[in-house]
Amino acid sequence: MEKENVSTALLEELIKNRQVAKLRELFETIPTIDLAEAANDIEDIRDIVFIFKVVKSDYTAEFFTDLSSEVQEKVIHLFTDSELVTLLNASYTDDIVDFMEEMPANLVSRILKVVDKKTRNDINRLLNYKENTAGSIMTTEYIELISEYTIKEAIEKIRAIGQDAETIYTIFIIDKKRNFIGTVDLDQFVFSKPEQTLDEIADKAAISVGVNTDQEDVATIFKRYNLTAVPVLNEDQRLTGIITIDDIVDVMEQEATEDMSRMALVTPLEDSYKDTGVLKMAIKTMPWLIVLMILGVFSSVVLSSFQDVLSSLAILSVFIPVLMDTGGNSGGQTIALMIRGIAVGEFGPKDYGHILWKEFRVALLVGIMVSIAAFIIFIIEMYLGIVFYAPEGIVGTALLFERMKISGMVSITLFFTIVISKTLGVTIPMIVKALKKDPAIISAPFITTIVDVSALLIYFFICTQIFQLV
Amino acid sequence: MEKENVSTALLEELIKNRQVAKLRELFETIPTIDLAEAANDIEDIRDIVFIFKVVKSDYTAEFFTDLSSEVQEKVIHLFTDSELVTLLNASYTDDIVDFMEEMPANLVSRILKVVDKKTRNDINRLLNYKENTAGSIMTTEYIELISEYTIKEAIEKIRAIGQDAETIYTIFIIDKKRNFIGTVDLDQFVFSKPEQTLDEIADKAAISVGVNTDQEDVATIFKRYNLTAVPVLNEDQRLTGIITIDDIVDVMEQEATEDMSRMALVTPLEDSYKDTGVLKMAIKTMPWLIVLMILGVFSSVVLSSFQDVLSSLAILSVFIPVLMDTGGNSGGQTIALMIRGIAVGEFGPKDYGHILWKEFRVALLVGIMVSIAAFIIFIIEMYLGIVFYAPEGIVGTALLFERMKISGMVSITLFFTIVISKTLGVTIPMIVKALKKDPAIISAPFITTIVDVSALLIYFFICTQIFQLV
Repeated sequence: MEKENVSTALLEELIKNRQVAKLRELFETIPTIDLAEAANDIEDIRDIVFIFKVVKSDYTAEFFTDLSSEVQEKVIHLFTDSELVTLLNASYTDDIVDFMEEMPANLVSRILKVVDKKTRNDINRLLNYKENTAGSIMTTEYIELISEYTIKEAIEKIRAIGQDAETIYTIFIIDKKRNFIGTVDLDQFVFSKPEQTLDEIADKAAISVGVNTDQEDVATIFKRYNLTAVPVLNEDQRLTGIITIDDIVDVMEQEATEDMSRMALVTPLEDSYKDTGVLKMAIKTMPWLIVLMILGVFSSVVLSSFQDVLSSLAILSVFIPVLMDTGGNSGGQTIALMIRGIAVGEFGPKDYGHILWKEFRVALLVGIMVSIAAFIIFIIEMYLGIVFYAPEGIVGTALLFERMKISGMVSITLFFTIVISKTLGVTIPMIVKALKKDPAIISAPFITTIVDVSALLIYFFICTQIFQLV
Repeated sequence: MEKENVSTALLEELIKNRQVAKLRELFETIPTIDLAEAANDIEDIRDIVFIFKVVKSDYTAEFFTDLSSEVQEKVIHLFTDSELVTLLNASYTDDIVDFMEEMPANLVSRILKVVDKKTRNDINRLLNYKENTAGSIMTTEYIELISEYTIKEAIEKIRAIGQDAETIYTIFIIDKKRNFIGTVDLDQFVFSKPEQTLDEIADKAAISVGVNTDQEDVATIFKRYNLTAVPVLNEDQRLTGIITIDDIVDVMEQEATEDMSRMALVTPLEDSYKDTGVLKMAIKTMPWLIVLMILGVFSSVVLSSFQDVLSSLAILSVFIPVLMDTGGNSGGQTIALMIRGIAVGEFGPKDYGHILWKEFRVALLVGIMVSIAAFIIFIIEMYLGIVFYAPEGIVGTALLFERMKISGMVSITLFFTIVISKTLGVTIPMIVKALKKDPAIISAPFITTIVDVSALLIYFFICTQIFQLV
């Protein structure tokens, strides 16, 4: 039951007719994301600016965050300085930083000029953290209280300053020297006595992260410990920001999308697909196709040196696509499981031996079953004439035997290809991870190349040396 | 800074020496997930049962949830009925249902026998919801208050009953007829006056979901509206449960893992990779390899019918793997973007035309660039002798021209293959989605098959009809 009962036309009409009361009512009853999506399509940007003039900044700040970055930029262009200040004061610092990262330099300096000194410092600090670190996604609007406060005093304090905080459900407790001590959850206020001190009820074993912790690791910690907010400490173990679960939900989605892109050989997009242009999409997808084509030279070399064999026994070419595809698919299965396991923190280097042994046994089992199936399928294909193979002068049992040789050869190659591809599928992501690179993008090209070449070498080896077909 | 400062050995030692105070202290200061992971490896299950005897059930209930299902089962076997009741009373219903789903039938009936009537009804109700629906992941421990209460009364009520609720940060407001009216966030209690009624401060536009809503859609709603809890309504619009963000985080991870598995042709695992046996893994991976091998018959047919061409011009076989791989890779890129876009709700059927047109232009651009690169790469390969192609009696400029013909033929085929694969990569997932099936698993086999066959047909058509090489 999503509520998307607002259209661009309705917004435009209310604005055109200056129905301010109706407009305000919309903002009070409809989630800002729905309003922002409708507003993104409004033709005249001045209509959107009008919304900011008449609706309370509590609503418009969130509404602004939900607008597309293109519209955000145009809106800020039309803002007076005082309108800009109102917006910035009502926004959380991490949201300001998020949209500033999409803005041209002149708007960035304009924003930095109009905000107060503390906000400017906070923004600059957040902008300076490396992308994808805890520092880059944290916010500076949190409630920190000194551990000596009683609960009664704490509640008064929260009433006074809490309106600006991104969450009041977790209160961060520091000592007089501003060292981080622990956290208190708001529900403890409900269940504790007013005269208890924060020090008595604080969770001093609370999990924290460092400013340089990778956002993916922060997400893993949130999941593992079921957190809704986590304190971010700087190098001196001082509290410097917090990360809330809503930002982590975005991180999880972003990281999963990136891993999926990389596995499919697409360099992760900075923006959404819809906001990425044709040329940009080509740049994100083309290089890997060319890299793999160049790595494909190794298969070409093998095939090239067996041209004589292929000429005199063309049936061999017929099964090359099946070999390539099955090798690629079976390796791809293992890689996907590995990369996902590594990404969600299920596997570490210490599990390598165990997983390799398991996947090796899986490969043996799958290899045997697929080979048997292949053997039967290929004989049927030849019997039905779907695939033509009937050397001159050979008939009856002798022909069946010839066909079994070809089919057997392909099946045996398939078996080894599956075992090799699954073994590499475990090994290469682990090596890449141990080298502290992202396994998602580096693994696939390597494995495809090695599997293709080894499948062909085994194929021709069995054909020429074992079965002596040519 | 994860805190994993507890080992199996330490736990075993404390239990063996009956150091109850130390043990209790551990549970008060260390997250239960860390303790459970250490406890999973304890040899003697009676040692784990001892923990439940001496540590407060507030801690052991969560600790139990974090144990592996294998250990959970053994622990319950050794429990007396009264120990079991203590555990169940301290656990949330959704957690009980989660671990019951892993238990053998005799333990399930034992659990249902010892719990009180209300819990039994709740468990039965939750167990009956279809897997992956809101009903199956919701919990029944929430705070619902009648809208006429003042804030002061509400706080007293929460103090009295709130300890058992899974969250008190969102309070669910109903009218006297038990119809759901809206929600109140706990922070509103802090910032409102004690004599205001819940009716005055409730958010009546609060988002809700139905019991049969798919969990993936619930996750999308959480993300879109930045929720931390959502009410679940039954068919009569009555409040019947709630879902909290920690469960949604698990859903998101699970859904991303499943999509990644499906895209890689692995039927999603029910348990973690580590808990899945070798045979089970083979069953999850083998069928798709065989299905694709059978679909591969179409390529075999094409190749089979051009055996004469392949015999007389073996160089053609050399480039087949490059054609197959590039076609597969470029289609795979588009499919991955589509499937992810559909999964996170970025694309719907209405976007189909727009995306097709965009991806078509991307394909043209990528196709042209890759073809040009391929043309140059293949000529260099032949020039360097890495790939051998030098028809007898042809030298000098004539040889270069012959090589350009071969290279050009492959490049043109690549161009069309890329355009076809990317176009299909948009179209097939959209069709599958429109048929209300999961695009992740059905798309890849179809596309691989169609792309392989069309690449080969184009290849031989250009070779025999246009370039008239054979």
